[in-house]
Amino acid sequence: MNISALDVIRKKRDGNELSRAEIDFFIRGYTRGEIPDSQAAAWLMAVVLRGLTAQETACLTDAMLYSGEVLDLSALPAPKVDKHSTGGVGDKTSLVLAPLAAAGGLIVPMISGRGLGHTGGTLDKYEAIPGLSVNLPLPRFREVLETCGCAIVSATAEIAPADRKLYALRNATGTVESPFLICASIMSKKLAEGLDALVLDVKAGSGSFMKHDGDAMHVARLMVETGRRMGKKTVALVTDMDQPLGFNVGNALELVEAIAVLRGGGPEDLCDLCLALAGWMFYLGGRTSTVDLGKKLAEELIGSGRAFDKLRQMVALQGGDVKVVDDPSRLPKAQGKLEVASPKTGYVTSIRCEALGKASVLLGGGRESESDAVDPAVGIVLHKKVAQPAKAGEPLCTIHYNSQARLDRARPLIAQSFHTGDAPPEPRSILRGVMAVS
Amino acid sequence: MNISALDVIRKKRDGNELSRAEIDFFIRGYTRGEIPDSQAAAWLMAVVLRGLTAQETACLTDAMLYSGEVLDLSALPAPKVDKHSTGGVGDKTSLVLAPLAAAGGLIVPMISGRGLGHTGGTLDKYEAIPGLSVNLPLPRFREVLETCGCAIVSATAEIAPADRKLYALRNATGTVESPFLICASIMSKKLAEGLDALVLDVKAGSGSFMKHDGDAMHVARLMVETGRRMGKKTVALVTDMDQPLGFNVGNALELVEAIAVLRGGGPEDLCDLCLALAGWMFYLGGRTSTVDLGKKLAEELIGSGRAFDKLRQMVALQGGDVKVVDDPSRLPKAQGKLEVASPKTGYVTSIRCEALGKASVLLGGGRESESDAVDPAVGIVLHKKVAQPAKAGEPLCTIHYNSQARLDRARPLIAQSFHTGDAPPEPRSILRGVMAVS
Repeated sequence: MNISALDVIRKKRDGNELSRAEIDFFIRGYTRGEIPDSQAAAWLMAVVLRGLTAQETACLTDAMLYSGEVLDLSALPAPKVDKHSTGGVGDKTSLVLAPLAAAGGLIVPMISGRGLGHTGGTLDKYEAIPGLSVNLPLPRFREVLETCGCAIVSATAEIAPADRKLYALRNATGTVESPFLICASIMSKKLAEGLDALVLDVKAGSGSFMKHDGDAMHVARLMVETGRRMGKKTVALVTDMDQPLGFNVGNALELVEAIAVLRGGGPEDLCDLCLALAGWMFYLGGRTSTVDLGKKLAEELIGSGRAFDKLRQMVALQGGDVKVVDDPSRLPKAQGKLEVASPKTGYVTSIRCEALGKASVLLGGGRESESDAVDPAVGIVLHKKVAQPAKAGEPLCTIHYNSQARLDRARPLIAQSFHTGDAPPEPRSILRGVMAVS
Repeated sequence: MNISALDVIRKKRDGNELSRAEIDFFIRGYTRGEIPDSQAAAWLMAVVLRGLTAQETACLTDAMLYSGEVLDLSALPAPKVDKHSTGGVGDKTSLVLAPLAAAGGLIVPMISGRGLGHTGGTLDKYEAIPGLSVNLPLPRFREVLETCGCAIVSATAEIAPADRKLYALRNATGTVESPFLICASIMSKKLAEGLDALVLDVKAGSGSFMKHDGDAMHVARLMVETGRRMGKKTVALVTDMDQPLGFNVGNALELVEAIAVLRGGGPEDLCDLCLALAGWMFYLGGRTSTVDLGKKLAEELIGSGRAFDKLRQMVALQGGDVKVVDDPSRLPKAQGKLEVASPKTGYVTSIRCEALGKASVLLGGGRESESDAVDPAVGIVLHKKVAQPAKAGEPLCTIHYNSQARLDRARPLIAQSFHTGDAPPEPRSILRGVMAVS
């Protein structure tokens, strides 16, 4: 067989289906540096505009997955199940679900990411705990999983190196926004965890990467189909990201809400979503015979304190200060607070969620360039969410800041993010759709 | 104004029209090395798949044209007119038209190219004349034009550097085959010659880059429209390339036919095409009031020997051995000749023209890689063209070769290039369509 990079590019450009051998050749060649960025960029743009078939998407995922190491956790006796979100604003569910699912007897080998664009990252939030390390070598990662059933760590260079290289290129060449490439990127990294089952949280709305429900459903369907083709139980929940999840946006602020949920409190939308995702994790992991029984199990694990205890154990094993988990008021705090008042009396009709996410980045809670350090303390605490009444002068949110210059940049974005009207909008469920395993 | 390369890529990816400022920014940035190959490749693929509007195509041509020097020949009193072909097999018309048009009082500042893929290049054919140089510095090019009205030279680094860089990238990234990019590439180089009018020969058929008449007409329309928008009189003739033009394929062999035409002989199809193109050159250049009168003028210039004299003068000014022009038997000759016989009696129904072009490259008449030297002597002389009768055993063509190894590679291609049948196909005119200035 004589495959050339140019032939692969041309074939996709002309809208034809690539074979497994052609996709393998291209991904392997690019990862090894034998195919230059320019050829990969042309191919990526052809993929964005021509799309991939389900078979091609699975082959691409497979090629990216096996570009690096795939964890073998078969020696651990419990089912390996993870949850992954496509990214949103105020989404701290991973910090709840890893210990919650592990408390219920699942192994959760969570390899997570940093904030990207306007969205926050689980690692940045988790690292708000002093002393905690997410950079565990694979042998130590395995030990922590054996001891407590869950760990939240950063990807190492061994995990899906093709995705790492392709992602940087996509970011520079306008080829991020492809449901096929999004699917292959997520699935290759997640399946490298050696999972039995995967629960996907596909965000839809102004604060997500998929602004329209249709786009989110498309990505959800692709990922579930790819999971099926690769022999993994997979479900995708399409959930609301038209406003931040919970009330808090910012690293330490979000950790506070996650701890509250594990202690039986926390905001209603966040609790609902965590229980729905945990219900599916327990069901797909074989701990319960239905999703509803899975939700009930999750409620019991929170009520009994076992889920919270699991968080304490995980934090301790990753070197974090457990006193902070017991008393979140010990978390880093911002020096300044500023309330943003409602300009008129009425109802909050919508919140520009991406703008709030960008504002949080500007405050220092995320990175404007890759080398930036993240400030754990800053962020935004909402006092009003969509459909709630607000009187003129009443605070809509409080900005937590550490720098006047950063506040000055973020404040206009935040002030423009809340829209108020005379009547509340129709109430919407956090769960917009479920794409289940077939 | 704050344009980023990423925004320009995304805008084209999403099918939107780019502004002049955005196209200028991108082409200037790429030419200067500020925009990397990877971003340019993604943009090129988006252009291939999304297309360009007429306005964008003109802006792109303009940006590429002004990436380098544009000749100012306004001091020369005669109209500046050139002819350009999109490339074919056996196409030696440029060698006829430069002296023919100059003999009729036009200035022909012909910046030409080398063989590309399976197609031959005017420079390679012209250089078959011993001593001749096509690498004239711009001041010397101008002197030759002043003295004799025509010169055929190689592009210098100062001419449309954006095209030079983009072309190499397109070649590596599967983005050559776009009518918009083909148009901008050709028009930017040709308009850098400081022309008043341009006659385009757009080849259609198995031996050209546009296999289908519709594609050729599309490129023709784009180039004429781009010329119009840039204030240049432009016409495009769509002409047959389903079989080689004339009988000879190969550098010196083609020069022999071009000289024959200028002396009043030569193959009928080649003569017809040269007269049609010359007719348009004289008409657009204002030497005659109609195209037909232009053709008549061309016939007279050939009949009187003035066109041939102009070739002699041009060759001499470019350092070539004029004795070879007077006696083409002095041109380099191949050591071996091999006839390819017709396997059966019938009519030639079609000739796989691209295969013949590739065979000529394999014999050494073109380049398989950029650094290859070209053998002026080798090539293929056809004895039968489409619709001619051939008896079993009668020669269809003669291969001129200098290396047995090269012959062995080329021969199977040549043998499979002639198709014969029981009846001749419908006769077709060499001229398939004219896309005239509006």
